[in-house]
Amino acid sequence: FRKTIDQKKPCKHFSFYFHDILYDGDNVANATSAAIVSPPGLGNFKFGKFVIFDGPITMDKNYLSKPVARAQGFYFYDMKMDFNSWFSYTLVFNSTEHKGTLNIMGADLMMEPTRDLSVVGGTGDFFMARGIATFVTDLFQGAKYFRVKMDIKLYECY
Amino acid sequence: FRKTIDQKKPCKHFSFYFHDILYDGDNVANATSAAIVSPPGLGNFKFGKFVIFDGPITMDKNYLSKPVARAQGFYFYDMKMDFNSWFSYTLVFNSTEHKGTLNIMGADLMMEPTRDLSVVGGTGDFFMARGIATFVTDLFQGAKYFRVKMDIKLYECY
Repeated sequence: FRKTIDQKKPCKHFSFYFHDILYDGDNVANATSAAIVSPPGLGNFKFGKFVIFDGPITMDKNYLSKPVARAQGFYFYDMKMDFNSWFSYTLVFNSTEHKGTLNIMGADLMMEPTRDLSVVGGTGDFFMARGIATFVTDLFQGAKYFRVKMDIKLYECY
Repeated sequence: FRKTIDQKKPCKHFSFYFHDILYDGDNVANATSAAIVSPPGLGNFKFGKFVIFDGPITMDKNYLSKPVARAQGFYFYDMKMDFNSWFSYTLVFNSTEHKGTLNIMGADLMMEPTRDLSVVGGTGDFFMARGIATFVTDLFQGAKYFRVKMDIKLYECY
């Protein structure tokens, strides 16, 4: 059946920042992610580098601010000629305001100013939710740290 | 738009056990899963250990009982300070009773008594299905064996 959804009117909308601090062997206390393989050498843009993360989600740009959620999952780099990556992860909300998760996957087309991934499901407060997660790179410090602005727009809410 | 789903009335409901026996180099006959990398050393809770599995789904707690389905996919550990993991897998049904698959992903918040993942899609008898998969740890024997009770509740059936 064909239902229509007004893209400009999500039933829920969040906007916050995801922080990733890559483990470098010495920064156990601060690190939020770690590469589990070294890239196989296809091109010069980390093709195949696979990173698992459990990073904070904050309302402002400071990674030390109190997190409103956590993002748990993985990303890997997947392009020969430029930086490009792919994500699959869960937003875990565990606060008085929200309790539940959102499951997200898709291509992070890093050379695009904004790029959309799919919210493929939700649990708890976000039971059976679906929608779009829009990524915007906010800060990228090579292999050390990056910050992505995530706009989560749910179009199916129950 | 808002359609309503009665969380207490799934259109289909399964409850069964998933068994995981990790390959340790000597147990080829019994093993149902294998780690493909060793953890990179971020914390002491196997952060980054990535395991691929093809395990039996049984109606009772005995991993030797005749399986009603198989679970094929991967999980990895993703927390520095405690055991926590993330799953993405397919339930493969190939019996007179059910023929088809269910695709599932989400955070396995292991310190929670129960935790929900998303059934993001289905095929065959489960064409276009969506729902929730609730995990309850039944038995956890360190790196050797674990058993998880999986409650699958479909809320979209066609």
